[in-house]
Amino acid sequence: MAGADMARLPRIDEGWLLAEDGRITALGTMDDFQGVTDWRDLMVIDAGGRFVLPGWCDPHTHVIFAAPREEEFVHKIKGLTYQEIAARGGGILNSARKLRAMDEEDLFARARTRLEEMMRTGTVAVEIKSGYGLTVESELKMLRVARRLKEALPLQVRTTLLAAHALPPEFKDDRAGYIDLICSELIPQVAAEGLADHVDAFCETDYFTPAEMERVLEAGVRHGLPGKVHVNQFTSIGGIQAAIAHGALSVDHLEVMEPGDIDALAALPAAAVPMPTLLPSCSFFLRIPYAPARALIDRGLPIALASDHNPGSTPSGNLNLVLSLACIHLRMLPEEAVAALTLNAAAAMRLEHELGGLTIGKRASLIITREVPSLAYLPYAFGADHIDTVIIDGEPVRSGAALR
Amino acid sequence: MAGADMARLPRIDEGWLLAEDGRITALGTMDDFQGVTDWRDLMVIDAGGRFVLPGWCDPHTHVIFAAPREEEFVHKIKGLTYQEIAARGGGILNSARKLRAMDEEDLFARARTRLEEMMRTGTVAVEIKSGYGLTVESELKMLRVARRLKEALPLQVRTTLLAAHALPPEFKDDRAGYIDLICSELIPQVAAEGLADHVDAFCETDYFTPAEMERVLEAGVRHGLPGKVHVNQFTSIGGIQAAIAHGALSVDHLEVMEPGDIDALAALPAAAVPMPTLLPSCSFFLRIPYAPARALIDRGLPIALASDHNPGSTPSGNLNLVLSLACIHLRMLPEEAVAALTLNAAAAMRLEHELGGLTIGKRASLIITREVPSLAYLPYAFGADHIDTVIIDGEPVRSGAALR
Repeated sequence: MAGADMARLPRIDEGWLLAEDGRITALGTMDDFQGVTDWRDLMVIDAGGRFVLPGWCDPHTHVIFAAPREEEFVHKIKGLTYQEIAARGGGILNSARKLRAMDEEDLFARARTRLEEMMRTGTVAVEIKSGYGLTVESELKMLRVARRLKEALPLQVRTTLLAAHALPPEFKDDRAGYIDLICSELIPQVAAEGLADHVDAFCETDYFTPAEMERVLEAGVRHGLPGKVHVNQFTSIGGIQAAIAHGALSVDHLEVMEPGDIDALAALPAAAVPMPTLLPSCSFFLRIPYAPARALIDRGLPIALASDHNPGSTPSGNLNLVLSLACIHLRMLPEEAVAALTLNAAAAMRLEHELGGLTIGKRASLIITREVPSLAYLPYAFGADHIDTVIIDGEPVRSGAALR
Repeated sequence: MAGADMARLPRIDEGWLLAEDGRITALGTMDDFQGVTDWRDLMVIDAGGRFVLPGWCDPHTHVIFAAPREEEFVHKIKGLTYQEIAARGGGILNSARKLRAMDEEDLFARARTRLEEMMRTGTVAVEIKSGYGLTVESELKMLRVARRLKEALPLQVRTTLLAAHALPPEFKDDRAGYIDLICSELIPQVAAEGLADHVDAFCETDYFTPAEMERVLEAGVRHGLPGKVHVNQFTSIGGIQAAIAHGALSVDHLEVMEPGDIDALAALPAAAVPMPTLLPSCSFFLRIPYAPARALIDRGLPIALASDHNPGSTPSGNLNLVLSLACIHLRMLPEEAVAALTLNAAAAMRLEHELGGLTIGKRASLIITREVPSLAYLPYAFGADHIDTVIIDGEPVRSGAALR
């Protein structure tokens, strides 16, 4: 859904929904309800007074990491700059050092715990990036962990190779050499093993240039892996235009948008727009500007929302708080924010035919809320847990009062 | 604790604590542990890997109200001004209209549900204000509901008469008459019935002037009810100086502080400083400036934190999110924020001898966290539930894994 359509969220009052074999097979209003021919073996859930929503989709996370980085958080409160923290061994390279030293089993267990908590808060699909390995071996290790998570957990998992997350110390004086390694070794191997669905690059001043990102995107396209890219977080340096040129699936962050950046997106035919994916929890935690969501919507563009869950800039995977941040700080209407966390978030990882809506044939991955007075109450009463039950592919992963 | 002392939170590693009859009776490090003479009837809790903290105290709430006001939240997203919302019947008078029409039983049940949720998130003491009645009858109704809540729930409750919250429509053309009513009728009656512990006034441009607040504070002092006042939320108009002149217990909000306002507080002897009580959830939700916490601490002043839970500007009573907001947006260190939510918050409602610390003789009202790597992790990993168990006066009100 794009532009003004995002505020027109379809809604059934006094409705019913039938799921079989993990998929939605029928739904309607109680007026039309004909019953089912065979009630045996059916789990009947009375959701009276509650909302039944499509489960949240999270199309941008870095949820595989070795350890949190709260010591850097304290350093920042004490006034250290980003550069000073980096000089003390902080930042992405801090995570890379710890991740390289950790075995797959331990990494898997830690990420699994995080994803289980995210499922409890309503997340039914997640994109997971590599990017804390920064060597062939460690990037592959991260993606293998992601594959194991996909097999072990009921939520949908899509994976992204983000080797171009930061320049590893080994290539400090050979930027081109690292991009070569990504394009000539990593991407072909990842594609051959089916370890990733997309490629990504952190296109930002002091990280990777648009030209470097373009090389990654080109190699991705050659191997069937479209781009989901980090652009315009701190500076506007042409990342959006480069992403468009290579048919990226999504452009993520967008905190700093020049008029030409929005124009470039708005000029595209709807089907060609890379999904603008906003990460308000990152703005909240880093105290950087919020992305101009209203300007995007008012230009007829779609928006997806994601958590950005990572140990440096967003130590939170709770999309319910993202819903509140979207309404309070991005000035999105509750319906727009729900659309951005469901159908549009699913589309940002090519899952829109599987998830993101209550329609026949989609996965029965649902949130049943507590008894709340309105949809707007969910973002309004921020910081509270409004979820009663979470169902993924027809099976409860969190059981609340509605199931009793 | 004030100034630099706030960062020096006392801490016992590998400790033990004994509670009997709802009070802390002994504590120390495991090295010193002599055992107890009689283990029978003791509930033993293994908090290994967890933090045991004094329960949160919440010295500023408006938790008795008839209904949430999420429709005004949507109006604000759509761009309506505060004045336009008020013209449509919004704001404090909206809450007053609904509260006047609601019976005590219904008000009690709704506030009880809110307080039960707050206890689950670690709140063990709460101040509750009137201020949505704005008639003698309805203000008394609110305070009677607060008294019933105090009797019905295990957490400590302190109450505040906030009749000077907004000018009721009946007194639109008679400001002095309303202040007369508060000072000559309401305060004496509330004091005689023991219905409130403090008085409050919303000293703000377009609400009540410092001179009007002073009349309320004087009447409060005459009846043994010290002031806890709303000052400097949107404008600096002399409220702090007026509060100091009348020996107020706390000055709350402080989002807009002129140098003279901080000077006035810093010039006082420590024992005479009204507790500066900051409400970062209100800044978050209204997108107004955050109070200058660092400037206050750096001048040697103490800080308390509170939720401000109310349906207009802060629809949240979760002090764990306040902990994160204090560190992320007020730039307080984790230890400072914990001090502000425990000992200083207790002092802001004269409960510092009962609560706010783990010392012998205080109430055994405790938070046991989940297994977390550090104290700093609690505010850092924002938007997550880090609480395992909550104990009030020695009795669990939320039972987690530590009790199993």
